[in-house]
This record gives sequence, C-alpha cells and structure tokens, in this order.
Amino acid sequence: MENTPARPPSARLDSYVDRYAARTAGMTASEIRALFAVASRPEVVSLAGGMPNISGLPLDVVGGAIADLVATQGPVAMQYGSGQGVPELREQITDVMRLEGIEAHPDDVVVTVGSQQAVDLVTRVFCDPGDVVICEAPSYVGALGVFKSYQCDVVHAEMDADGLVPEALRQAIAAVKAAGKTIKFLYTIPNFHNPAGVTLAAERRIEILDICRTEGVLVLEDNPYGLLGFDREPMRALRADEAENVIYLGSFSKTFAPGFRVGWALAPHPVREKLVLAQESATLCPPQFSQMAVSAYLAKHDWQGQIKQFREMYRERRDAMVSSLADLMPAACQWNVPSGGFYVWLTLPPGIDAKGMLPRAVTARVAYVPGTAFYADGFGSSHMRLSFCYPTPERIREGVRRLAGVLEAEMELRATFGPVVPARQVNPQGYDGPSTDLS
Amino acid sequence: MENTPARPPSARLDSYVDRYAARTAGMTASEIRALFAVASRPEVVSLAGGMPNISGLPLDVVGGAIADLVATQGPVAMQYGSGQGVPELREQITDVMRLEGIEAHPDDVVVTVGSQQAVDLVTRVFCDPGDVVICEAPSYVGALGVFKSYQCDVVHAEMDADGLVPEALRQAIAAVKAAGKTIKFLYTIPNFHNPAGVTLAAERRIEILDICRTEGVLVLEDNPYGLLGFDREPMRALRADEAENVIYLGSFSKTFAPGFRVGWALAPHPVREKLVLAQESATLCPPQFSQMAVSAYLAKHDWQGQIKQFREMYRERRDAMVSSLADLMPAACQWNVPSGGFYVWLTLPPGIDAKGMLPRAVTARVAYVPGTAFYADGFGSSHMRLSFCYPTPERIREGVRRLAGVLEAEMELRATFGPVVPARQVNPQGYDGPSTDLS
Repeated sequence: MENTPARPPSARLDSYVDRYAARTAGMTASEIRALFAVASRPEVVSLAGGMPNISGLPLDVVGGAIADLVATQGPVAMQYGSGQGVPELREQITDVMRLEGIEAHPDDVVVTVGSQQAVDLVTRVFCDPGDVVICEAPSYVGALGVFKSYQCDVVHAEMDADGLVPEALRQAIAAVKAAGKTIKFLYTIPNFHNPAGVTLAAERRIEILDICRTEGVLVLEDNPYGLLGFDREPMRALRADEAENVIYLGSFSKTFAPGFRVGWALAPHPVREKLVLAQESATLCPPQFSQMAVSAYLAKHDWQGQIKQFREMYRERRDAMVSSLADLMPAACQWNVPSGGFYVWLTLPPGIDAKGMLPRAVTARVAYVPGTAFYADGFGSSHMRLSFCYPTPERIREGVRRLAGVLEAEMELRATFGPVVPARQVNPQGYDGPSTDLS
Repeated sequence: MENTPARPPSARLDSYVDRYAARTAGMTASEIRALFAVASRPEVVSLAGGMPNISGLPLDVVGGAIADLVATQGPVAMQYGSGQGVPELREQITDVMRLEGIEAHPDDVVVTVGSQQAVDLVTRVFCDPGDVVICEAPSYVGALGVFKSYQCDVVHAEMDADGLVPEALRQAIAAVKAAGKTIKFLYTIPNFHNPAGVTLAAERRIEILDICRTEGVLVLEDNPYGLLGFDREPMRALRADEAENVIYLGSFSKTFAPGFRVGWALAPHPVREKLVLAQESATLCPPQFSQMAVSAYLAKHDWQGQIKQFREMYRERRDAMVSSLADLMPAACQWNVPSGGFYVWLTLPPGIDAKGMLPRAVTARVAYVPGTAFYADGFGSSHMRLSFCYPTPERIREGVRRLAGVLEAEMELRATFGPVVPARQVNPQGYDGPSTDLS
C-alpha cells in the first residue's frame, strides 16, 4: 500500500454526506432515470420512456407563431411575469378543461413547470414528513419520487380493469386512520393510467368522490392523458363533479409538446393562493416565454384537430403493440388493452422477475420499465410497463419480438435451473465484466 | 344577526387551514409581491421592482434565432430533455463563468428555472427544519422566502461599504455554534448586492473563503449581477478560488432576459448529483425550449457586446438616481453609490419608518421596497431599496422628486406630532376608507 499513490480527495467519496437534509434519503435515482441513457442508443427499441411523439406538429405553424410572438410581444414574453402564470393562457386552459366537463375560473388556475411541478407544489403545501398519500397500485413513478422526497408515506390501493377499486380505497383509508396517521390526499390518474393503462369507470368516479368527501381526504386528480382516448369523447373529470375537494392537474406535454414545460393546477381558491406563494418561492414565476408560446399556438392553430391526429397516431401504435403481444409473447403473459394514453401493463409468468431480466433485455436491444418502479413498497417484480407512444409501429413490433425472445430464454432457464438465478445489476453497456463501481 | 343571509361557505374562511404542511407558516406573501400590483399601474413611478430593462435587446436577432431553432431542431427543442439541462448550453455557461475567473466542467453545471430555483434546490438538498443559513444583513428577499419555506433559521451578519464583514461572519458562526445549532451554508451576493448595492472587496473574498473552509460552512454564492459592473472588469468569483466548498449560482435573467427562466448552479460533483435528482423530482427537466433559445442567442449574437450596452444603460440610470437623490432628498438621508447592478440602499432620517410611509408614497405615485423585506428578523424599518433598473432616467428623477416630497411631509409630521403616528396598512389603491378585508 505504501507505494500506491494517494487517491485525490473526494474523487469517490461524498465529503458532503453528513450535511445533506434528511429528505435526500428519499431522493434516489429512479429506474426510469437509469434507462434514459439506454433508451437514447439508436439500436435499442425503447418501450421504456414516456416521450410523446411530436413529429406530427406543424413546425411552420409553431415557428411562425413564436416568431410573431417575439416581434409583437417580445419585451413582455422575455420579461418576468406573475407567479400564477399568464392570464390569457389561464383563460385558454379553462377552455381545454371544459372538454372534460370542468367549469372553472382562470383565477383558480396556477401555471406550473410541467404538471410534475404541480405535484411537487401541492405536496409542498400539504405534506409534513410522515403524512400519508394514498396512491393507486401501481402509480406514476415521478409522483412517487415527489412523495418520497417530501418524506411522505405512500399507501397503495388496488386497481382492477375499471381503475381504482372503491372498496380498496375505503380499506386503505380505514387502515391508515386506525394506525393513527394523517392522510393528506389521494393521488389518482383516472384516465389511461400511467403505468397501468386502465381508466376509472364513470360510476366509480362518483363513488370515489363520495368516499373522499366523507372521509375528509382531498383528491389530487392528475390528468395528462385525458384527451388522448382512442374510442370515445373525453370522460368527465372528477373535478367536473366536485370543486371543493379536488385539485386537478393538467399538462400540455402530451397534447402539444413537453419542451415548453407548461402544466397547471386548478385548485380551490385558498389552496390556489398557497400554490402561488409556493411557485414564487420555487421559481419567482413560471417561464413567461414558454407560456406565451403555448398561448400563441392555442390561439393560432387548430389544437383540437392536432389532438385528434395525435389520438389516431397513438391508436395505431397501441394496435401495433397489442397485436404484436398477441402474436409473439408466450401464452403465460397477460396484458391489458388500453383505450387511450401511452402504456400497456404486462404481467409476466410466475417466477419471472422483470427487474432481473432487464440486463438481458437490454443486451437483446429492447428496454422497458420494471414494475417495481411504480410501487413504493417493493411490489411489482412480475410486471413491466411497455410504452407504445414513441417508436413507430414497425419498431414496436420488432421490440416486442426481441422481448418475447428474451422472455422465452428466461422461461427456459427457469424451467431448467429453477427460479433462483440471482438478479444481476442493470448494465446499460450489456457488458458483464467487473463493475467499475466495485473496482 | 338573525335576518342576515348566511354567507356562502368558505367564501372567506380557508377550510383547508388544518391540512397544510407546517412549512406553509413560513410561506407568506412578501412585501415585494404586494407591490407588483402597484408597480404595474402606469402613473406610479416604481422604484420597487427588480425587472431588468430589456428594451435594448435586438428582437430581430432573437426572433430569427428562435425561428431557426424551431425549423432546424424543433422536435428536440419541444421534447423532454435531461434533468441536468442541455449539454451545449452547459458548455456555454462555462464560457460565461470564465469571465469571472471560474474554470469549470459542464458536467458540474445544473440548469435551473431561474437562479431562484437553484436557491430552492440547494436548500432542499441541504436544509432540515431548524438548520441555520447565514445571510448578509440585509439579504435578497426571494432567498429569505425560500429559507423560511424550508423552515430554516436565518442568522444575519453585518455588511459595510466593502460587503460582508469577515469579523461579523466569524461572530455569527461562533454564536450559532455556541447555541448548538447546525449551519448549513452562508448565502452571499458578493457583487452589486441586492438590496444593499455594495460589492465584496477582493481581499475579503479570500478571508471569507478561509473562514468558511475552517469552520466547515459551505458557501452559496449567488451572482446574478456580476457582469453588470459600471467601472471595471468583473471581479473574480468566490468560486474561482475555491471549488470544493462553494456552490455558485448564475442567471441569464439580467444579462439576457428573465422570461426564459434560465439560471444555473455550479456545484461540487456529489452535490451536483443531488441537485439533478432534486430537479427531476421538481420538474422532470428544466424547459428544453427555453434552454435551446438561450443557447441559440449566445451562439448567434454578440452577447458580450449586449452586456456592455446593458452596463452603459444601467450606469446612466444609476447616475440619474444618485444625482437626483443628491439634488432632491432631505439632508438627513444617506445612501450608497453602487458600482454596478440595480439597487441603491437608502437610510432614512431617525424616526421615519419606511413601511409606515409606503401608503403615502403610493398615494404620491412612487413605490419602493421597505427595508424590512430584506431582513428575517424584523430589522430594516429605517431603510428602503430603490431600484434604478427599469424606469428611464427622467422617470427616476420624477420618482425621486415625489419620494422627497413624501419624506419631507413625513418629517414635518414627525416634527409636529412626534414619532408615534401609527403605521397604516399598505393600500395599493391609495384609498383610505374601510378595508374590505375587515368588512
């Protein structure tokens, strides 16, 4: 050891480790994050990410609207704005929400940096460490990350093909209350669920609103996909039937484009005031330029016609995925057929672990998100989320073909050696040598 | 009372009041926020807000760069991006920081939604409730708001004409440690301080870095104005002489335009990783479109020449303000002559309360920010911040004239009736009838 040159200080060690806030224990890299690096390699068919396919957007229209914005309102668009967001955009947002039966006043809308920030700000306003958030099982990985970073306890309530099961919600609430803990809200994605692909049935919506009102549990309705149904008109939002006990979150990321990061929260008036204060503390104001760009797009383009095009394109991809799954996957797999949105939720045959299989899948040039990412409690190992939003139908079919091959090999391995093959670390390079992290 | 119709529920009362997180107690409307409404009325000369004057930006260049961005890279600019920010922009950010002597790698830069969000994310990563942040006295109101919202204790350390006083910092650290509390960082604005207008002397920079290193106190260097000096080249950043114990925050809000909300943090590697996780939780990623718009502007425009124009324009306004103050203000007032940035810090004659006087000033159509906004401890009543960034030199002179008139009347009142005139509530309408909040 004496002849080994000294390692430069803090090249490996985190010398700040004793100084971080306790909440950082809950801020860990998600499985989706590690996969972004993988998904970006062109030879991999990524069924992992949730990136919308925006190639159908008319660049000339968008470019023209924004050039016009700079020329005619540049000094306003490039200036600081209000913490609540641009008034004209908030007015347009109420038009968008009207498509789901919501009658709202622009004063009760707060613009956010994507609806991700809306989840963050609502949690900031409501949750102390140890407070409980009830989430569907499974639930959106990005929201679970927020709840963990605010040191909340997540309690899952089961879903079935019709979405969140009211009786499961009742039981979850009762169990949390019996344990003497405080429930701050139910976080729910009623339409084309991420990751489960299911939609909350109309009659359940009323029942769930009733349960939450009776039990004094606020509802956080996250609805990025509601306008992306394949077969029918948008369903009535929970917020359409209950103004006082629901905070509704919307987004332009899937109906227009995510790069502007424009989402919103619609909240009861006193909550809205708190959200604006939280927004001012977080960013002073959401990006004025982004907001006015989205507003110009909405004003100058047939945005509803564009959403219709998106719906048709995503339906074609959904069809490609479910027909490929039916044609290619082993019989013991199960999946749902989503009626909108971006995702299929797949259940593996008994004994197959989605997380353990991922390195083999990546080696075979296909990626997905293991089900465990969508649970706060370690459940989900026999599930995976498959996204059909971004790859073309041909690539989807090729990706499913590769995945089926990996799965068949996995099943054969299990049949030969039994289910106790140790899960290996995810290795995006597909290289199975010594990890540099251990050297 | 029996004949009074019942008030609709929750029209006045906040029925959610028992459900908010404890941190919301620290999230209150700042004095600056209440003033935004006032400042936007055209007849008021606002010396209150910190809005940069961006009327000198070449709209054709900006519009052309952005139109080109949409046409050539639209699908990337409108898509999700990395949580850390656009690589090319992070490279350009290192060029900007090199002007202040900083040699940094783009990997250690995290793009944020304005540098306000950088303050938020750093605090999120480091501060538990009850942790201490040491701030200059006075300090930036927006940062104090963040520290309060994370339930930190702010301890102020005195400044003089050369910025933060090293001995005051030593004493503050010793006092906090003696009280058994944990200091997480020193928050400092070394250049053209907001609100104090002073700049930290070069020899003090080394001394303050030494103190903080010795005492194990991280330095959070907030530097939105560093390139906006009137008389000389930019000073060396604290970060230029200390990489391991300094987190540096920068912003394009004052050197280009705030409406894109693009700021950044430069942090030691392990801290950078935590900040990226925090950013992903907060927003998934900062706005890709904004970042690429700023990047295109930097690539296609003589941005350093533009900053030189900004400096000359702000120097002219600084000159207008200090000469107006010298010509018009009562002799008992004191102020500094800032060598850059946006702000003059004014000390009122004994017995005059800046907050109490504000409604009279607004009635006289001039606005400022009372000094109390910049202290966490209630101090500052005999001070005010005057901004010279936004109004024209003529309007600045008119504003100072109005302010001098208000102050003279106030002094006369004090001379006649003594100092115990009750401070009235701020009333943006200038209307002195019953407040609707009390009705």
